[in-house]
Amino acid sequence: MLIDSTYPKSFASDNHAGVHPTILEAMTAANHGDAPAYGGDRWTSTFEHHIKETFGPEAEGFAVLNGAGANMVGLAPMLGRYDAIVCADTAHIATHETGAAERLLGTKLLTTPTADGKLRPQDVTARLSTLGSHHEPQPRVVSISQVTELGTCYSPEEIAALADTAHAAGLLLHMDGARLANAAAHLNTSLGAITTEVGVDIFSFGGTKNGALAAEAVIVLSPSLAHAIPFLRRQSLQLASKMRFISAQLSALLTHDLWRHNASHANQMATRLANGVADLPGITIAYPVQSNAVFATLPKAATAALLNRYLFHYWDEAAGTVRWMTAFDTTPDHVDDFLDVIRKSLVIP
Amino acid sequence: MLIDSTYPKSFASDNHAGVHPTILEAMTAANHGDAPAYGGDRWTSTFEHHIKETFGPEAEGFAVLNGAGANMVGLAPMLGRYDAIVCADTAHIATHETGAAERLLGTKLLTTPTADGKLRPQDVTARLSTLGSHHEPQPRVVSISQVTELGTCYSPEEIAALADTAHAAGLLLHMDGARLANAAAHLNTSLGAITTEVGVDIFSFGGTKNGALAAEAVIVLSPSLAHAIPFLRRQSLQLASKMRFISAQLSALLTHDLWRHNASHANQMATRLANGVADLPGITIAYPVQSNAVFATLPKAATAALLNRYLFHYWDEAAGTVRWMTAFDTTPDHVDDFLDVIRKSLVIP
Amino acid sequence: MLIDSTYPKSFASDNHAGVHPTILEAMTAANHGDAPAYGGDRWTSTFEHHIKETFGPEAEGFAVLNGAGANMVGLAPMLGRYDAIVCADTAHIATHETGAAERLLGTKLLTTPTADGKLRPQDVTARLSTLGSHHEPQPRVVSISQVTELGTCYSPEEIAALADTAHAAGLLLHMDGARLANAAAHLNTSLGAITTEVGVDIFSFGGTKNGALAAEAVIVLSPSLAHAIPFLRRQSLQLASKMRFISAQLSALLTHDLWRHNASHANQMATRLANGVADLPGITIAYPVQSNAVFATLPKAATAALLNRYLFHYWDEAAGTVRWMTAFDTTPDHVDDFLDVIRKSLVIP
Amino acid sequence: MLIDSTYPKSFASDNHAGVHPTILEAMTAANHGDAPAYGGDRWTSTFEHHIKETFGPEAEGFAVLNGAGANMVGLAPMLGRYDAIVCADTAHIATHETGAAERLLGTKLLTTPTADGKLRPQDVTARLSTLGSHHEPQPRVVSISQVTELGTCYSPEEIAALADTAHAAGLLLHMDGARLANAAAHLNTSLGAITTEVGVDIFSFGGTKNGALAAEAVIVLSPSLAHAIPFLRRQSLQLASKMRFISAQLSALLTHDLWRHNASHANQMATRLANGVADLPGITIAYPVQSNAVFATLPKAATAALLNRYLFHYWDEAAGTVRWMTAFDTTPDHVDDFLDVIRKSLVIP
Repeated sequence: MLIDSTYPKSFASDNHAGVHPTILEAMTAANHGDAPAYGGDRWTSTFEHHIKETFGPEAEGFAVLNGAGANMVGLAPMLGRYDAIVCADTAHIATHETGAAERLLGTKLLTTPTADGKLRPQDVTARLSTLGSHHEPQPRVVSISQVTELGTCYSPEEIAALADTAHAAGLLLHMDGARLANAAAHLNTSLGAITTEVGVDIFSFGGTKNGALAAEAVIVLSPSLAHAIPFLRRQSLQLASKMRFISAQLSALLTHDLWRHNASHANQMATRLANGVADLPGITIAYPVQSNAVFATLPKAATAALLNRYLFHYWDEAAGTVRWMTAFDTTPDHVDDFLDVIRKSLVIP
Repeated sequence: MLIDSTYPKSFASDNHAGVHPTILEAMTAANHGDAPAYGGDRWTSTFEHHIKETFGPEAEGFAVLNGAGANMVGLAPMLGRYDAIVCADTAHIATHETGAAERLLGTKLLTTPTADGKLRPQDVTARLSTLGSHHEPQPRVVSISQVTELGTCYSPEEIAALADTAHAAGLLLHMDGARLANAAAHLNTSLGAITTEVGVDIFSFGGTKNGALAAEAVIVLSPSLAHAIPFLRRQSLQLASKMRFISAQLSALLTHDLWRHNASHANQMATRLANGVADLPGITIAYPVQSNAVFATLPKAATAALLNRYLFHYWDEAAGTVRWMTAFDTTPDHVDDFLDVIRKSLVIP
Repeated sequence: MLIDSTYPKSFASDNHAGVHPTILEAMTAANHGDAPAYGGDRWTSTFEHHIKETFGPEAEGFAVLNGAGANMVGLAPMLGRYDAIVCADTAHIATHETGAAERLLGTKLLTTPTADGKLRPQDVTARLSTLGSHHEPQPRVVSISQVTELGTCYSPEEIAALADTAHAAGLLLHMDGARLANAAAHLNTSLGAITTEVGVDIFSFGGTKNGALAAEAVIVLSPSLAHAIPFLRRQSLQLASKMRFISAQLSALLTHDLWRHNASHANQMATRLANGVADLPGITIAYPVQSNAVFATLPKAATAALLNRYLFHYWDEAAGTVRWMTAFDTTPDHVDDFLDVIRKSLVIP
Repeated sequence: MLIDSTYPKSFASDNHAGVHPTILEAMTAANHGDAPAYGGDRWTSTFEHHIKETFGPEAEGFAVLNGAGANMVGLAPMLGRYDAIVCADTAHIATHETGAAERLLGTKLLTTPTADGKLRPQDVTARLSTLGSHHEPQPRVVSISQVTELGTCYSPEEIAALADTAHAAGLLLHMDGARLANAAAHLNTSLGAITTEVGVDIFSFGGTKNGALAAEAVIVLSPSLAHAIPFLRRQSLQLASKMRFISAQLSALLTHDLWRHNASHANQMATRLANGVADLPGITIAYPVQSNAVFATLPKAATAALLNRYLFHYWDEAAGTVRWMTAFDTTPDHVDDFLDVIRKSLVIP
């Protein structure tokens, strides 16, 4: 499994990349003297300031350690003992967090099939018929991913419509923003335009997949829900003692729009890759390329040949669909070399 | 609360210190090219090798993100649905983890008062009378802290006696080793001599309080319990995607005995501090100084004066007892300056 | 909502019926002098003896208070902290127990659509691809309902095939037997022929829907799993202090095959009802009638008219499907009167 | 263990007694025709009416199946994810419910030693120092038992003082009223005088230990907390499908003050027993006799001899303290016979 040195550039995940130099420099600069633990330091104060600048004066940001942690800490204050979450059946919380939602939150996920990873208002409405029945968990949160797990993006209008539907029924809107930066870059909007301005109640803002070492944030836009987060973060094992080093990473991303720089670049590399395979016979792009992911369906023999040379994962092995991810440090040459091997793999059989 | 710059050196906690330069260099060196996520990288392979070298060929190490996380991930595979933990009433899992043991593990803590933070075999035996009664949780794990929360250390013989008592009754022995390095340094033993060689089943090995940025390890010595850890680590939100940067920290600590160098130094600074106050009128050392902590009882007016100049915490405000911690980067000058201010504080009233 | 006196006979649920006289007499007879609490009484001893007679010498029976309780207590000893249950998406544990499986057990339900409420071996096999991946809950239990929530029954061979598939993959087979008696009556088998003899590991045996006041049993056929049940029953709030009155109900059902008498009768009444509507224009029977339930699809105007006169529930309002249940005390006259009103309702529009 | 027939009358527990004839008659009378399940029946309506008559127009009553169930369902709506309960270390929820509070509620019990099983306002105040610290669970509920586990009673004034202390600090007051009837009988007050009128927020009202078969109630006096109970009751496995038979028991107890008749009688029998041993050499009454329990300390040889003839339990074997319980059906002859054997046991050694 020690495959790192034998592959030219990984297209398996944006967390196969390392740390952006600016972020590592910010961490190194924070290693200066003593600082109070658990957040009472000036780097964390700066981070909190960045959050209010970016997401509005009512936004409160809480740094955490990883994406699943950001989801669990963000969802916890929204959910009572018999509440359920409406989400897409591809949602990360439903598929790749080892049942943390069920075990740590004790909640039920009411999952819905979607064509493109995106929930629609009618998917929410269809789940509301059980409201009031004490035999069934009560839908309380709608959780969406921006970017979705299929690499697609909700438009601001689509998010607003979901928020309206949720709020009208007394539900809250949560967003898994592990790749929020990629969405804002793709949509060419501010980060606030797809969160604060469209009715999201709590969301996560991911740093790790966008060049950080290990840093995510839970952002609370509904002030009444913020009070609980410090307790929930501590109890959920998501509080760093040397917090300044987490805060410094997030502040670096939020300074001079480094987040957008990194995400735009990764998105462009995905587009370059998608364009490069668009006309190849035998390859189909499975979902619209709206971020740093390309989902492609190709012959299994070609995939097998390609996997000998490049690291990436099947998304749906039965369907022959693979996922290729780009990162902040993917170069045009990386993509072009990969395209070259793809072309060769396709002709092997 | 932005007190960092206004204080000369914190004696409040060993996690007020920054990162040891060697560890930060190791992290920087790991930022080279791509690496598989979640642990399939060569830095993690090296870490796993270090663990076997240090703790024996059956030891399996799993890197996690913080101390509470290490405790929860380590305890989880030992506990069934109606099992309880016997521990000191000062145990960190009982007092400072926001009820994570109860909520995340669903377990009951059978806490016992102690004179010095150390559990004795008879404390365990006294809890066994409920075994077999289906109205009561079943004692299943004995959990001790090495160093204890009162700064004291168990001798290898004391640990072995607890392991024997636990095992004879069908219980397992867990050790919270957030400051295990300080214990081995104080006892002048290897790390294995107070874990592998004396019957511990699962323990944590702390890095963060000993110069790391954020890195702890769960070490499993009972092979049958290791299989569950990767699932529990992921579900408990303790899995880093860019794992190489956590593994690199732990490997740096385990290379050339950096762990012992840092811990010994911190311990020596605590001893220097304790010696410096030993003869001062009005100050009493509350517990034997066997690590990097000094617990002292002094007049409240003196404490108040001292808190104006130095950062530290009350341990027991009613009793007038404070806790002073030293770290890998505390210097003799830091201690001497602190002693100077302590002396002046004592004469103020 | 105080509808009981205004309706001639409920077809809404088999638990709208009262208690069979023989069972109430057994409870009254048990009200004689003192008895140890929590199960150490002679009525419970008799019940345990009946269980071994009925399900074999290795079977251990534990009386509990309701059906959801029987499911949770029975599933708990099979599931570790990151284990999941494969079940039909109509399973009672998935739809009508207010998320108890997720909250009390902390488990994830891997639900599968079915044509008739019955899981097939390939449905299990399709869920096994995640075994070994620490990002996903691990399938550990296959849970089926006999009778299913759609009124259908598994043949002994079908259960055996599921048990083989589960066991071959290291999974266990659980059966929700809230209406196990109805299944054995329909299949004309013994109770053991659809449990002990076909590889079920733990199942529930329902009394309440078959004439008891409130009595279910958890039956463990895999001896190593039985030890935990008394602790889990107590912790899960399913232990009766005056246990003799629960045990007496179950013993009454198991004496002189009262369970079969009651269940056969209820099944026959459902068949009479189904036969009565078979030729009516506008009504379709939705699922094979293999127990005491009839699922029928009819025009909504007819349903509305019928609901003015009789108590029953929509199963799928969008599809126009209703569920009619019969009970041990439903008489041919009840059915015939109901049929008469059904016929009249159909012609109203 | 089938000891029932070999002992003349159990003094081990009030749930060794059977069912009061009036209650069994009420259950039999409820076995008439069909009734909606889960509570929509006229017996439940009557029960709810009794609750309002007894505890005031804002009181809402919910019938459940056993005492631990009543505690868990009653505590659940009061507790968030990081909240703790302040209680006596003898509290039933802390000692005899197999860790249900920790596992089902995920809460931490902040237990306090007491002289007589009764919590004082200063015990509550002493626990409030952690309020606001995100490293520690937050005290949110004060839970007391009336009658306590040591057989003592809180006066109305004592309860009011605890309620004031709790409410002033933002906490809620819960009461485990498994023997509430015995307390009201001892204090010669109404049931409302020790609940509604003195600031209790949620409490349980026990029936089973006072002559019912299996029936307890959760009573909510703070209207905003009532909405959640039906969902929590269902999820916590405490909802009876044939609810009418539970409701009928509780209504029977609340009709013509049967609850007081039964409890007064049991209390008087305990007083008769206590008076009978008061002057015996070698026996000490351990706690004030204020209900249907007598705690006595006597020589172990005498206890051993007595246990050959009568069924009861050690409370504290090391101290030689036993617990003798009386019930609604204990007669003066039962007590006098028991006293006779006690006297003989004392002279044996």
